[in-house]
Amino acid sequence: MTATTPPDSYAPAASTTPTRARQRVSYDRELVHGILDGTYLCHLGFVADGRPVVLPTLHARDGERLYLHGSTGARALRHGELPVCVTVTHVDGLVLARSAFHHSINYRSVLVHGTARRVTDEARARAALDTLVNAVVPGRAADCRPADGRELAATAVLELELAEVSAKVRAGGPNDDPADLGLPHWSGVMPVRTAYGTPVPAADGGSRPELPAYLRERIAG
Amino acid sequence: MTATTPPDSYAPAASTTPTRARQRVSYDRELVHGILDGTYLCHLGFVADGRPVVLPTLHARDGERLYLHGSTGARALRHGELPVCVTVTHVDGLVLARSAFHHSINYRSVLVHGTARRVTDEARARAALDTLVNAVVPGRAADCRPADGRELAATAVLELELAEVSAKVRAGGPNDDPADLGLPHWSGVMPVRTAYGTPVPAADGGSRPELPAYLRERIAG
Repeated sequence: MTATTPPDSYAPAASTTPTRARQRVSYDRELVHGILDGTYLCHLGFVADGRPVVLPTLHARDGERLYLHGSTGARALRHGELPVCVTVTHVDGLVLARSAFHHSINYRSVLVHGTARRVTDEARARAALDTLVNAVVPGRAADCRPADGRELAATAVLELELAEVSAKVRAGGPNDDPADLGLPHWSGVMPVRTAYGTPVPAADGGSRPELPAYLRERIAG
Repeated sequence: MTATTPPDSYAPAASTTPTRARQRVSYDRELVHGILDGTYLCHLGFVADGRPVVLPTLHARDGERLYLHGSTGARALRHGELPVCVTVTHVDGLVLARSAFHHSINYRSVLVHGTARRVTDEARARAALDTLVNAVVPGRAADCRPADGRELAATAVLELELAEVSAKVRAGGPNDDPADLGLPHWSGVMPVRTAYGTPVPAADGGSRPELPAYLRERIAG
């Protein structure tokens, strides 16, 4: 962090300074945290044999650290650490303008550049797994059987420091050219959100307890 | 395509052969097309200055070609072509097992590896833009002002051949260990889907036509 970076912002880096749409970029810490915490799905990018690879995986934030469920990227981790770019994207709306050119998407995204490392300490790996489970369903980690030693060893958890970070946000209505305002095409925003359906209990012959409150809340939220 | 690859499948390549969870991988063409066509959001990975970069952008399929809205990746395209990995992911459900270890996500994803090139021919760029607009809102390209020459020149559209392609799918309920079936934790699947809210007309003082049928259908779908 440089002297010119306020404590509530991340310091811009070459990797997080876009060449286009600069007005949409932010380094605000609270905004970044909100975008990261608002979903569990991220896309993990790394270089394998000189070529880019992008895999969907799960993430969870713990302060200024990001945990990643790393089993799918494990083959690239042979050397214990891996330069990565982790991207989290929320689509908030479809922006329909009267001109094709001004069509857009309302979105919030975060890019995190850095070096991912495998969490090897057992206690920390356990805490990281709980954080990941709770990121998907808040409250769930306390309501399931914790991983035993064998399971823990079979689960690769990566960690990544939040340092080279930027957010990008597009919000609001379409920006049609003045000359197009009279055109007879509907214009505006179609809001997009993630919805949860009715939970389907496991059909495995096992226990069938009542749906817990934290799951009922997840559906309503 | 090799002699052992059926015409309804993509040929496996080193880049599309995972080292883990092999049973979830498919090269089925129809499955791949369905996953690509089911959303407009993709994550575009490339290598810049030796480091991975993952940007969210829009995609649309036209036969065995993928179009990408490329403005955000334009800086990497200086040499006219760019090795990329394009990943499309649908989250279909949260899988809650009685053990932390067997928690999972039901998802469908596609990875496309290849070399993206900028579409420079004006007629093809125009058709590609229509395809992208219709991928976001089917039917929309015919109901807006088409891009003029200046707008077309300002829009970078990339194309990518569908050749090195694989899909990965996880579906169904949790797979708890038999010893855990009696544990008193709710287990099953919480379905996840994308929902559309009530459209918000532009507040720009311009025309206010009635909501067209293709948008009403998008909300209902």
